Amino acid sequence: MHKVGVIMGSDSDLPVVEKAIHTLQELGIPTEVHVFSAHRTPEESRAFALGARKAGFGAILCAAGKAAHLAGAIAANTTLPVIGIPIKSSTLDGIDALLSTVQMPSGIPVATVAIDGAVNAALLAAEILAVSDPELAKRLDDRRRADTAKTLEKNAAIEAKYNH
Amino acid sequence: MHKVGVIMGSDSDLPVVEKAIHTLQELGIPTEVHVFSAHRTPEESRAFALGARKAGFGAILCAAGKAAHLAGAIAANTTLPVIGIPIKSSTLDGIDALLSTVQMPSGIPVATVAIDGAVNAALLAAEILAVSDPELAKRLDDRRRADTAKTLEKNAAIEAKYNH
Amino acid sequence: MHKVGVIMGSDSDLPVVEKAIHTLQELGIPTEVHVFSAHRTPEESRAFALGARKAGFGAILCAAGKAAHLAGAIAANTTLPVIGIPIKSSTLDGIDALLSTVQMPSGIPVATVAIDGAVNAALLAAEILAVSDPELAKRLDDRRRADTAKTLEKNAAIEAKYNH
Amino acid sequence: MHKVGVIMGSDSDLPVVEKAIHTLQELGIPTEVHVFSAHRTPEESRAFALGARKAGFGAILCAAGKAAHLAGAIAANTTLPVIGIPIKSSTLDGIDALLSTVQMPSGIPVATVAIDGAVNAALLAAEILAVSDPELAKRLDDRRRADTAKTLEKNAAIEAKYNH
Amino acid sequence: MHKVGVIMGSDSDLPVVEKAIHTLQELGIPTEVHVFSAHRTPEESRAFALGARKAGFGAILCAAGKAAHLAGAIAANTTLPVIGIPIKSSTLDGIDALLSTVQMPSGIPVATVAIDGAVNAALLAAEILAVSDPELAKRLDDRRRADTAKTLEKNAAIEAKYNH
Amino acid sequence: MHKVGVIMGSDSDLPVVEKAIHTLQELGIPTEVHVFSAHRTPEESRAFALGARKAGFGAILCAAGKAAHLAGAIAANTTLPVIGIPIKSSTLDGIDALLSTVQMPSGIPVATVAIDGAVNAALLAAEILAVSDPELAKRLDDRRRADTAKTLEKNAAIEAKYNH
Amino acid sequence: MHKVGVIMGSDSDLPVVEKAIHTLQELGIPTEVHVFSAHRTPEESRAFALGARKAGFGAILCAAGKAAHLAGAIAANTTLPVIGIPIKSSTLDGIDALLSTVQMPSGIPVATVAIDGAVNAALLAAEILAVSDPELAKRLDDRRRADTAKTLEKNAAIEAKYNH
Amino acid sequence: MHKVGVIMGSDSDLPVVEKAIHTLQELGIPTEVHVFSAHRTPEESRAFALGARKAGFGAILCAAGKAAHLAGAIAANTTLPVIGIPIKSSTLDGIDALLSTVQMPSGIPVATVAIDGAVNAALLAAEILAVSDPELAKRLDDRRRADTAKTLEKNAAIEAKYNH
Repeated sequence: MHKVGVIMGSDSDLPVVEKAIHTLQELGIPTEVHVFSAHRTPEESRAFALGARKAGFGAILCAAGKAAHLAGAIAANTTLPVIGIPIKSSTLDGIDALLSTVQMPSGIPVATVAIDGAVNAALLAAEILAVSDPELAKRLDDRRRADTAKTLEKNAAIEAKYNH
Repeated sequence: MHKVGVIMGSDSDLPVVEKAIHTLQELGIPTEVHVFSAHRTPEESRAFALGARKAGFGAILCAAGKAAHLAGAIAANTTLPVIGIPIKSSTLDGIDALLSTVQMPSGIPVATVAIDGAVNAALLAAEILAVSDPELAKRLDDRRRADTAKTLEKNAAIEAKYNH
Repeated sequence: MHKVGVIMGSDSDLPVVEKAIHTLQELGIPTEVHVFSAHRTPEESRAFALGARKAGFGAILCAAGKAAHLAGAIAANTTLPVIGIPIKSSTLDGIDALLSTVQMPSGIPVATVAIDGAVNAALLAAEILAVSDPELAKRLDDRRRADTAKTLEKNAAIEAKYNH
Repeated sequence: MHKVGVIMGSDSDLPVVEKAIHTLQELGIPTEVHVFSAHRTPEESRAFALGARKAGFGAILCAAGKAAHLAGAIAANTTLPVIGIPIKSSTLDGIDALLSTVQMPSGIPVATVAIDGAVNAALLAAEILAVSDPELAKRLDDRRRADTAKTLEKNAAIEAKYNH
Repeated sequence: MHKVGVIMGSDSDLPVVEKAIHTLQELGIPTEVHVFSAHRTPEESRAFALGARKAGFGAILCAAGKAAHLAGAIAANTTLPVIGIPIKSSTLDGIDALLSTVQMPSGIPVATVAIDGAVNAALLAAEILAVSDPELAKRLDDRRRADTAKTLEKNAAIEAKYNH
Repeated sequence: MHKVGVIMGSDSDLPVVEKAIHTLQELGIPTEVHVFSAHRTPEESRAFALGARKAGFGAILCAAGKAAHLAGAIAANTTLPVIGIPIKSSTLDGIDALLSTVQMPSGIPVATVAIDGAVNAALLAAEILAVSDPELAKRLDDRRRADTAKTLEKNAAIEAKYNH
Repeated sequence: MHKVGVIMGSDSDLPVVEKAIHTLQELGIPTEVHVFSAHRTPEESRAFALGARKAGFGAILCAAGKAAHLAGAIAANTTLPVIGIPIKSSTLDGIDALLSTVQMPSGIPVATVAIDGAVNAALLAAEILAVSDPELAKRLDDRRRADTAKTLEKNAAIEAKYNH
Repeated sequence: MHKVGVIMGSDSDLPVVEKAIHTLQELGIPTEVHVFSAHRTPEESRAFALGARKAGFGAILCAAGKAAHLAGAIAANTTLPVIGIPIKSSTLDGIDALLSTVQMPSGIPVATVAIDGAVNAALLAAEILAVSDPELAKRLDDRRRADTAKTLEKNAAIEAKYNH
């Protein structure tokens, strides 16, 4: 099975990124976590990206805030699917990270999820691996059904409270 | 090989979406194109999404403008990777479509690309299929190298013009 | 008398939505509350919308945050008036939910109120029912006059404090 | 049958507002059109709103640009449903009109549609009247089905062109 | 001497508006304070504006949040200078109130100050009265010089701390 | 009678500013026009502001685009009322000029009008002078009434076209 | 060695600006700190800027919030490099200060850093001095390497925690 | 004399960037122009940055649009002053490029100028070189004075036209 790389630009992003790691683990997907910065450790970012396909990765999650270049910098050095998680920081509510991640120039795609959307980034990576892995696809479908069931339970509770 | 679905919310999106279709064809990826609207043809959108994995799709591109719900509506009915292309319309420069596409709630990911970013949506779909298709991965690497070469040529022209 | 449906995309929206429920109850309007998600329980959302007119609903309130598709998804399956309440979430201060709710494509209207504007959503539903219900119209007029009186009281208090 | 009032803040809004008038006429809804400005003709706006229910109106459409106060000014003087159409002007792409229309304070709702969303404003008015008018509800359902059919035709054309 | 009217749309605006009242009092300007809402007490707002010049007012301050129509509604009924203070509310950080206040259509000006800029609104009113009141102009100049002196003192403290 | 100063940061602002000059002339207000830049001619801007009250000015209009500092720079050197006109330039649709003009720090007010709102800037200056000039106040009231009449004429034309 | 001027528009900016002062001191760069306001002490700001090159300054840092004119006002009176730090204030999350600082008209550049980006402003000043000071350049390179090392350590800690 | 590097992310940026080149040439500053993309030619970008100080550069201008990573990618590999020019592209009016360029994380500064602000980027580079080059400083002062003179001429023309 392919591994999923989880890279954060700063260890201060961990509280958000942890949810991605946890989700990948729940789905039984081998995961490798790194702190690489497009700006502070450009060499390590680049080396990781250049070697990622050979190292057995199937997708790379990149979380970064502000002028969030990490996902783009990784995507510039691999044709593996790169998933960008824009991180909200102390100003501008994450819109800077969102635009810096999603508005990539033609030729170098980054699959962007919601601001602080770490769970969805993990699910997207799982969906990518599941294209050629029917077992994983089944686990994703099961999880989706469980989500649906949970919402229906909440609905039942609200209905019991309000509708007589 | 898996197919890629290309769905647009309105045929007025075709001038942008055509670039995605063209890019997929250049990469030799079987493609199926539809006009399905989350709002005007909800049944058809839903039926397509529910049957997409069985029908052999590996990824689904969804292009829509304004309150762009198409990608989310498709993603709600499949665990295949769904790629959202926010389309710029007559007001707000596409920011409405971007936020409506990317800010998905936890559990239902949409891989969002830049506003009007059809070429990147196609490349992202190709990258997803290429995870388990080394030939396609090679074609993507070749294309990337060709892009690099083209930029270097442009650089050479500019250098020749300005640097003596 | 027609019922008003109150749907929230997640039970975390309840603190805001409760004000709508309360306002409808004050006005003596029969209300039915549900947690339906456009993305997590698309079938239930759709079934509710398709059957809503027959079930005696006269308007449907939909509250959702982020890429708020709920109101649009309901509106796609009924020609009853659908009222959207954009909910503020942890990033972007509700502008994502506002644009996702209000910027609907031609053909499928959603009557959008202010971010977190639950009371006004309830009043709007009441105004809609009151078009053919003079008693309810009277109750709305009474409530409006009471609001005016309350503001005038506050004015009197401020005038007493500052103007001598 | 109730009439629908269509008010525009300036006759320069007519090219957008005309689509609302046209849609209402297609649906056989009696319509009354005015140019009233919350700022230039406050007396006329107020008199119209105060007398609207008695005059047989069931809903009032208000179109205005920039600091678009018209819908709110009308809503302040009636408990009929007021529908606001934010109009795009020469700067800010309509976001000023959208926020000025939708962010109403608690107590005075305005049902806001998309920027320049005149057709949807008309449809929303029709949906409101149709709550107690099954014939009109049927005409709305027919129109919706026709819209769906048109989208399916466009889909068929695109499918014929691209899918072999 | 002309009076200055200070109107707030809701008594919840008082914590901000109090600074305007205080500043006017410091400058010895007779002040009259009211809670009038463009939407909840339109009659009182209108009556106040229509009679304001005769009643001896020289300028009117209007503070309101969200879809802040108060200043515009007052300005529609008087040709006295109307000064708008956009109030920050629970969402959108005051940008809704700013645009609703400042983007007035041609013919009906509102002199807009910063979001929550109550002190400047009061100073602006004072500057307006001072055009024909040299004593007040002198008091404004004195206050300005005092402000300058205060900044220079702070500068001296910082210089003492950091520059040796 | 006091004069009104009209300053633009660049002569490229003239097409907008001309409307202010024209409006002031229509109202019979003596006007003095300058091109002074806060950045390119800071000395001239400063000298003008410092001497403006003595020179007989009653209000100063300042038009500037982008990081529009002109109104603030003038206001820093006078306690006359300064009116800022944010000018739309080639990017950002004037929001940069609006925020640079309106968000003044406490102590130095700038009366800001809409983006490109030159006519309202002139009217505001006239309203300021009219506080102590009943003749001018009457001319402003006449103009307002004429505006109202013009809107009512347009209303009559629209009513004749649409309402039978 | 050239000095670096550090100017803040208000001493309330000190908690942010202190990081710039500290960074400059760590790099051994002589620093002079002032509180000068473009609006409250325009004379002092201007005098400082006019004399700065003669006084031995090599760069000037300017921190200001809201309609942040300080950097531009300084830049208007010197051709030394001026670095603007937009400060986040109580509304709008710093976007007003960013646009007021960065959108300078042609002819008067301001080198703008991130909102509240005081450390980077200091580093930029150091980089400017280092162009002709190889020792300082070496200190900057050392600091950069130390930053890289710190990130690699954090990476090692994360890797140890998550990758087995 | 140090050289100034001028890098654009795409040769489509040339119409804007040309103004920077022209300005540098007018000031007699040796210039080297390249098309390097952070994403399409990451190796060349990196190699250029790593060798830039040794190659005699004193500052590097980087122009890029959309998710504009170029300036940051260059700055990550040098401690020379890097100047970012955000380029307006087909959507979002350049705000994406501005935020992607200016919101750099602590440690890696980019000196950002206005959207499409190529002339100011060149002037800023010149100001940086002029810190240790009095001749260049004099040329900058001359140019500034010429700019002032030009504005005064325009002022004279406007004054002649409007003030009698």
